Amino acid sequence: MGATAPDVGVDVGGTTLTAALVDRRGVVLRDVVIPTPRPEGGARVLEDRIVEAVDRVSGGTVPPRVGVAAAAFISRDRERATYAPHLAWRGEPVARTLSERIGAPVLLENDATCAAWGEATLGAAALADSSITLTVGTGIGGGIVVGGDLLRGSQGMAGEFGHVRVVPDGRRCPCGARGCWERYVSAGALVEASRRHGGDHSWTAQQVGVAAEAGDSAALAAFAEVGAWLGTGLLAAVAVIDPSVIVVGGGVGGAGELLLAPARRVLARDLVGAPHREAPRVVSAALGNAAGLLGAVMLARDAFLGSG
Amino acid sequence: MGATAPDVGVDVGGTTLTAALVDRRGVVLRDVVIPTPRPEGGARVLEDRIVEAVDRVSGGTVPPRVGVAAAAFISRDRERATYAPHLAWRGEPVARTLSERIGAPVLLENDATCAAWGEATLGAAALADSSITLTVGTGIGGGIVVGGDLLRGSQGMAGEFGHVRVVPDGRRCPCGARGCWERYVSAGALVEASRRHGGDHSWTAQQVGVAAEAGDSAALAAFAEVGAWLGTGLLAAVAVIDPSVIVVGGGVGGAGELLLAPARRVLARDLVGAPHREAPRVVSAALGNAAGLLGAVMLARDAFLGSG
Repeated sequence: MGATAPDVGVDVGGTTLTAALVDRRGVVLRDVVIPTPRPEGGARVLEDRIVEAVDRVSGGTVPPRVGVAAAAFISRDRERATYAPHLAWRGEPVARTLSERIGAPVLLENDATCAAWGEATLGAAALADSSITLTVGTGIGGGIVVGGDLLRGSQGMAGEFGHVRVVPDGRRCPCGARGCWERYVSAGALVEASRRHGGDHSWTAQQVGVAAEAGDSAALAAFAEVGAWLGTGLLAAVAVIDPSVIVVGGGVGGAGELLLAPARRVLARDLVGAPHREAPRVVSAALGNAAGLLGAVMLARDAFLGSG
Repeated sequence: MGATAPDVGVDVGGTTLTAALVDRRGVVLRDVVIPTPRPEGGARVLEDRIVEAVDRVSGGTVPPRVGVAAAAFISRDRERATYAPHLAWRGEPVARTLSERIGAPVLLENDATCAAWGEATLGAAALADSSITLTVGTGIGGGIVVGGDLLRGSQGMAGEFGHVRVVPDGRRCPCGARGCWERYVSAGALVEASRRHGGDHSWTAQQVGVAAEAGDSAALAAFAEVGAWLGTGLLAAVAVIDPSVIVVGGGVGGAGELLLAPARRVLARDLVGAPHREAPRVVSAALGNAAGLLGAVMLARDAFLGSG
C-alpha cells in the first residue's frame, strides 16, 4: 500500500455509526452511515458493524490507520470504552479488538474530544493557540486544546462541560445531579424554552431553528434564553482555561448567530477582568458532523506515524 | 558568586510584602516582611520597597535570580502587571524595571499561579501529574498544572476560579458580576455564614475557625456550608480539568478538614460520571504562606537556567 492510501475515520454515536475515507488533506472522500446497534445487542454486534462499515467504505482494502470517535468515556490509555450510556461497551478493550479484527492500528477517543481536535487542526480553531470546542446537541460535549495539545485529564475525562453545574438545585439531570449546564443548553432545553415562550408544542429543536429564522418571536426568545445560558456556562470555562477561541458545533450549535450572539453578550458583560482582557472569539464549528471522525483520523496519524 | 548562592522569592500581596532567601532544596533560609505600600503611592514606591526588601534579605549580595509572585494580572509574556486592584501597577513593565534595579534576572507571575507551581513542585501535589491549587482567603486564587506544566491561558489568565459563577443572580461581587464562587467561599463568606447560623457577630474568619475547633455549633455550621460551596465549585473545575489532586490553601483553606470534608462529600455525590471514575484527592496545602514565593523561585530557576 502506498504512502497516500486514505485512512478511515469512524464516528460511533448513540443513533448513527459513520465510517469515512479521509485523504491526506483531511477531506472526506466518501462515507457510509448506518444505524448504531442497540446496547442490548452487546459489544460484539457493535464491533461487527464497525468492522463492516470500515470494510465497506475502504472498498475491502485495509486502511493504514483507523480513528474511532465514540460517544463513550475512554480510558486514559485509550484502550477501553469505560462507560457509554447509549452504546454496548462497559470496559471492553475496544481499541485492541478492533485493531486485530481490521488488521490496522486503531485509535479510540471520546467523540467530543475528537471533534475538538478536528476543529483545532482542520477547522474553526486551526490558527488558535488554545481553544474550547463544544458540541451542543442532546447534551454538551467538550474538548480543550492548550498549547497545541489536547488536555485529556488524569482519567481522560477533561472537558466534560455538560455537567458543569450552572444552577444550584436547578433542573434535574439524568446524571443524577441538578442544574447541569446541558439541561439549559441542548435540543431539549431549546424545545422546552420555545414552548414556555408560546411556541408550537409540536416543534422539534430543528423546527424551533426554522421558526426562528422565519422571525417567530417564541422561537427567537427561546434562542435568546438558551444562548444566554450558553454564555453563563462559558464564563466558567473561560475563567478556568482562558482560551483564545471557543468553537460551538453540534445540532443545536449549528444555529450559529441565533445562539452565539446572546452568549457573546454575557461574556462581554460578566467575564472576570472584562475591562482588562479581550474576550475569546466565539465562533461556529467549521467541520459539521465530520468533526469527530476527522479529529480521530488526525489523532491516529499522530499516534501511528509509521503507518501508511 | 558560586553555583549554590540562594535565590530570592518575593510575595507582593495586598497587605504585606515578603522577600525570602530560598536555598537549592526550596527551603526558606530567612525572610523579611514589610507592609505593602498603598496603591496611591504609585508604582515607583512599590518597586523601591521590593528592591530594598530583596537587598535586606540577601544581605546586600546580588542574588542569582529573583522570582516575584504578585497579587496582579500578569501579561502572557510575564513582563507587565496589567491590573491589580490592591497594588499600584497599571501595566508597567515590572519585570524589566526590577531586573535592572536589582541587577539579576526577575521572573514575574500571578501569586496564585506561583502558589500552584510551588505546591506542584515542592508541596502537596509534588507527585501528581495534574493538579488544581486554590488559595482561599479574601477571595479564591487558583492555578492549574497539567502534564508537568502550568496552564497559563491565552492571556495568562487561566485559573481564575474565584469568579466562576456558582449561582445565577446570586450574591453581588465587587467584580461587577453576581454569584461568583468567592462570594460563597472566602473569609467574608465564612463570617457571614457564621453570623447567619447564630455565631458571635464580632468574630473574624480566624475566630470562626477557633470556635469551630472548640465545637461551637454556629461555627461548625458555617464551615459545613462554606465547605459544601467549595465542593460545588470544584464540580465544575473537576469536570473541566479532571486533575488527580486538588490542593486547598490560603488563610481560610488552612482550616483543613473542617472545609475539605464537606467539599469531598459533594464531589463524591455529584461529580459527573461519579460511579465510573475516582474522585480527585482533595488535600491541604503543604507550603503555607511561602507557596507563592517558593513557586516564583522555582519558575525563575526554569526560566533562567544559566544564572547562579
